[in-house]
Amino acid sequence: MSCLVRIATKKDMTGVLNLIKELALFEKEPNAVEITIDDLIKDGFGSFSKFTCFVAEKSNKIVGIALVYMRYSTWKGEVLHLEDLIVSKSMRGAGLGTALLDKVVKYGYDLGVKRISWEVLNWNNNAIAFYEKKGANIMKDWSVVQLNDQAIKTYLENKKQNESI
Amino acid sequence: MSCLVRIATKKDMTGVLNLIKELALFEKEPNAVEITIDDLIKDGFGSFSKFTCFVAEKSNKIVGIALVYMRYSTWKGEVLHLEDLIVSKSMRGAGLGTALLDKVVKYGYDLGVKRISWEVLNWNNNAIAFYEKKGANIMKDWSVVQLNDQAIKTYLENKKQNESI
Repeated sequence: MSCLVRIATKKDMTGVLNLIKELALFEKEPNAVEITIDDLIKDGFGSFSKFTCFVAEKSNKIVGIALVYMRYSTWKGEVLHLEDLIVSKSMRGAGLGTALLDKVVKYGYDLGVKRISWEVLNWNNNAIAFYEKKGANIMKDWSVVQLNDQAIKTYLENKKQNESI
Repeated sequence: MSCLVRIATKKDMTGVLNLIKELALFEKEPNAVEITIDDLIKDGFGSFSKFTCFVAEKSNKIVGIALVYMRYSTWKGEVLHLEDLIVSKSMRGAGLGTALLDKVVKYGYDLGVKRISWEVLNWNNNAIAFYEKKGANIMKDWSVVQLNDQAIKTYLENKKQNESI
């Protein structure tokens, strides 16, 4: 089975969005994906790219993606973040995850970053075992915190109310 | 006690780095800070800013910081990430954490982001209680994963060895 891992083009974004939706379903959040193909094209291929995407292609079909961007560590300076590493369910176990991660690690190394980070669900034992085998550190003492769009609005409304008391 | 919360300038970076180091000590990683004042000036105030920093100032001294940058969610598009929210130990309990977080949430709202994210140590109960009170969701099912500079090198060496077998 021959598979090509390469940098994504605008034309790939339909296939990329399909995989993003497949992952959201696996993560039990099927309705969380608000992004569109047009957003991905605008944000990834405009005058300033907000992400870099690698794709794994087989028989003209996108069967895996790795999407990365830069973050800023106040300890290490610019670091690389892997937002999504997705391999289509039907293509698991064929080494595509490794091939995509290889690309990401080489990309980060070439940029000279001192860290590559990502996030994993605690119950995704297959992913955790895969990442640990690759030498990554699963930092179970750190939790992700989020304020979503509704919570942002509520926060500011509460602030206004407190100020008017 | 009057305290000014404002956007940081280059001149503030000495005080900002002092607080970054104070936090690293609290997080039991005193030797992890590799960044320099020159790095912060270059990265925050060059032709393309890699972060935005807010500072809390009292009597011409930087006593708190909130450092943010954009990330890219494959569900929500561009989102805001709060890398560090630090209030100097001597100034805790005076509402500076809230004043800085207020600025960050307003900044994210004005940018139109659908999410503001950050990370917290599981044992930092004071911080967790503070964030929960503000309406944030502590996502204990997500773990942070990191490949540090040494692990990046080892990864690529192992890859090379496997390829030559």
